[in-house]
Amino acid sequence: MNLQNLKKHIRNVPDFPEPGIQFKDITPILQNAEVFQDLMQTFYEHYKNAHIDYVVGIEARGFIFGAVLASMLKCGFIPIRKPGKLPAETIAQEYELEYGNNKLEIHKDALKKGDRVVIFDDLIAIGGTSRAAADLVRKLGAEIVEFAFIIELSELKGREKLKDIAEVYSLVQY
Amino acid sequence: MNLQNLKKHIRNVPDFPEPGIQFKDITPILQNAEVFQDLMQTFYEHYKNAHIDYVVGIEARGFIFGAVLASMLKCGFIPIRKPGKLPAETIAQEYELEYGNNKLEIHKDALKKGDRVVIFDDLIAIGGTSRAAADLVRKLGAEIVEFAFIIELSELKGREKLKDIAEVYSLVQY
Repeated sequence: MNLQNLKKHIRNVPDFPEPGIQFKDITPILQNAEVFQDLMQTFYEHYKNAHIDYVVGIEARGFIFGAVLASMLKCGFIPIRKPGKLPAETIAQEYELEYGNNKLEIHKDALKKGDRVVIFDDLIAIGGTSRAAADLVRKLGAEIVEFAFIIELSELKGREKLKDIAEVYSLVQY
Repeated sequence: MNLQNLKKHIRNVPDFPEPGIQFKDITPILQNAEVFQDLMQTFYEHYKNAHIDYVVGIEARGFIFGAVLASMLKCGFIPIRKPGKLPAETIAQEYELEYGNNKLEIHKDALKKGDRVVIFDDLIAIGGTSRAAADLVRKLGAEIVEFAFIIELSELKGREKLKDIAEVYSLVQY
């Protein structure tokens, strides 16, 4: 796809959610059916021959794109959620944010040994969230084929933080 | 699709998130690629000739299925979120829960007059969330073609609460 055109549909929102942060808003991509299709087709082409068993999506924006990718690949979709949201038995992983700590959970029976997964989120910053998601996936014995993002904030070097686990695939960089 | 088979992939989790509540867990549907495809195809067939401009999905499980439906219909997807999550200018709507109040938000520029939308969530209980979502959609001037759910808790009569706005389409009833 035309990645310069994609950037036109990512809205910069200054000082959200904290002063000084330039938030990258992906809702204009979703609003434009053509851009949304084109974006998802790009991910589909990238993974269509990769024998993916599951797309793992991180709450909440990762759900939107990750579920569509799973549907296109005709594979399953596994949600990773914030604490207390998944109803059945879970395992949890803590991680550091720029400001404080957080935790992610996955259902204990979501994945099994040998499953090939892509971990999907809309954006990679310092990589803490993705690393925690990867830890959960690996605790269940599954194999991480790649991390997929629409947006990579290159300066924050999240890619470095994940390089011992798997490759990072991102469409646009800031 | 075979709706009895679909029910087999909805897990009942007792006493979640509160004692006495029988939570309907849809993650086993997502985990099974074939059931997930079949489910989404059923919604696609139902809406393919309805001239839908946008699927509006309610955070967070509505994002998963709503985005896939939008992608299949080749239309846009609009997220309705919990307070403080959408970064640009929003409008808000309060609503009552069984225990306390809550609020939903939509971006002010998400929809315009005359847009034809389906509002999607995984489950309808008393209908309060869906009604608040509908109020947001109508404040922006858009037209609600239908409310779509996988699961309807018929005893709670959510359908009644929405009947002055639009029809309710649900796949399985409890």
